[in-house]
Amino acid sequence: MSTLLELVSKCNCVADIELLAEREGLYEFVVNGRLVGHLSASDISALRGVVNAQAHPAFKFDDVQRTLSFSEGFDDCASRSAAVAELLGQMRSGKTWASLSKWRNELYPVYDGTAGIAVMIERAASYNFGIRTFGVHINGFTRSTTGELRMWVGRRSPHKPTWPGYLDQIAAGGIGDGMGAWECMVKECGEEAGIPPELARRGRFAGTIQYFTRSELGLQPETQFVFDLELPDDFVPAPTDGEVDSFLHMTLDEAVDRLKQGEFKPNCAACVIDFLIRRGFLTPDTEPEYLSILDNLHRPLPHPAPRYNN
Amino acid sequence: MSTLLELVSKCNCVADIELLAEREGLYEFVVNGRLVGHLSASDISALRGVVNAQAHPAFKFDDVQRTLSFSEGFDDCASRSAAVAELLGQMRSGKTWASLSKWRNELYPVYDGTAGIAVMIERAASYNFGIRTFGVHINGFTRSTTGELRMWVGRRSPHKPTWPGYLDQIAAGGIGDGMGAWECMVKECGEEAGIPPELARRGRFAGTIQYFTRSELGLQPETQFVFDLELPDDFVPAPTDGEVDSFLHMTLDEAVDRLKQGEFKPNCAACVIDFLIRRGFLTPDTEPEYLSILDNLHRPLPHPAPRYNN
Repeated sequence: MSTLLELVSKCNCVADIELLAEREGLYEFVVNGRLVGHLSASDISALRGVVNAQAHPAFKFDDVQRTLSFSEGFDDCASRSAAVAELLGQMRSGKTWASLSKWRNELYPVYDGTAGIAVMIERAASYNFGIRTFGVHINGFTRSTTGELRMWVGRRSPHKPTWPGYLDQIAAGGIGDGMGAWECMVKECGEEAGIPPELARRGRFAGTIQYFTRSELGLQPETQFVFDLELPDDFVPAPTDGEVDSFLHMTLDEAVDRLKQGEFKPNCAACVIDFLIRRGFLTPDTEPEYLSILDNLHRPLPHPAPRYNN
Repeated sequence: MSTLLELVSKCNCVADIELLAEREGLYEFVVNGRLVGHLSASDISALRGVVNAQAHPAFKFDDVQRTLSFSEGFDDCASRSAAVAELLGQMRSGKTWASLSKWRNELYPVYDGTAGIAVMIERAASYNFGIRTFGVHINGFTRSTTGELRMWVGRRSPHKPTWPGYLDQIAAGGIGDGMGAWECMVKECGEEAGIPPELARRGRFAGTIQYFTRSELGLQPETQFVFDLELPDDFVPAPTDGEVDSFLHMTLDEAVDRLKQGEFKPNCAACVIDFLIRRGFLTPDTEPEYLSILDNLHRPLPHPAPRYNN
């Protein structure tokens, strides 16, 4: 049994990235003088081996400041992204980073703190660079005639490489390739739960959760755009892409029980807890760690936030 | 005209308290080794004058670490609170701190990071000690048959000493004297808007907003428990205690316009913006600074969070 605070702290497990960087000798990934990620000492060492062997001019290592940055001349997104793509391609062939065996062919943007993108990086390497990633998490729920809410929750396939069999949102996914959060929400609803677009579009933005997590893959500071999607009583989500084993329709009490039993994937637990707080189901009267939970759901990140063009 | 990011940043205006403390020579208020507040150099100097004149044994000043703390023997809430009350009583008579002329006769708790209270301090002095304060903000709204939301918003009396004539929540107030957030919400709804308790109890906890602000009164790191209260169509709030001049019933578009015109008191602006985000009215598609706004609405505070007994 876990407390809800333990669950959100497990998701937001990197409490102090500066302390961790100091202790483990992490390198900061710096673009235009802004911190945009962190790399482990061993990833830096492997990366440097390939850079040196190729005498690749794009990358600069500073072993005093412990930073990785781009050399002069690599001053825009296009030239930096091309250099990273070339390097990662070589590292993939050379099996330099194990993570690259799961090449996704999907680019993640690294924001520069203004309205622009500093560099695009293949998704499979995002954990190695420790860049801030973005995703969507959708809370699918129904409301009975008496007003009682129930959540639709997915059970991950037992064959998923990460968190097999754990409970998950009705749909969720990373945002890549310059897609917008809304568009990504509609896409994931269709792909993961068979929710047709006209129904998915009933979803509503409900803010974000934000955490800094670490897994066997690496460091992941992440912002999830949260959506609430009220579904009609007679709609039943259906696994469509093999990622989900089945869907469960549960009362909020049952969701809390299953949270405390540790059945949810950690960032999904955080998203469900945020839903329960926003809907007034969890309160300081029932949850002694209410404020500390909220701090862990809305953790600030040192990386630049994107600014949306509109 | 202000952007919404400018509004929340104006509320959460102390971005880096450590930097500010360094720059202005603030003293940390430390209890049981935990930072619980900050005092200005001039407030410390005036306070020290009174402590020295009385040879008051409870207070310890460290001019190297720049801390104010309690002496040995003042190890529990009762003895510390009595010492503070005695000192503030003398300072009130002696007009040492101007703030004490607005004595509230209401005690604010300073939490100790476990389940306990470190010390209780008269509300009028809370800004001088820079302690973390707690309040409730209530979003009163109606929903039309077509689902359109409108907010009830109070206009502060032109005679209020702070922010006269500015727009405010339908009801809001500080939590003192060991009152719970729920109880405080019901009380403020009655006192400020004439909302009867049975109607106020339809309110729902909806999370918190949290900011570190500074005004002419002093430093104020604050956590506001946010409530959403859906009101019936035919209910009209009524000014009851002279604090509110009138109430306005506005569409969400009008709320955004009035926000940008700077008509709202800053922390009320933050609470309305949080409501608009949670309800999906503000989205990254319409609001370019969406993520930075959220960071300013959920700013972490270094002070211990209370743990609720239940």
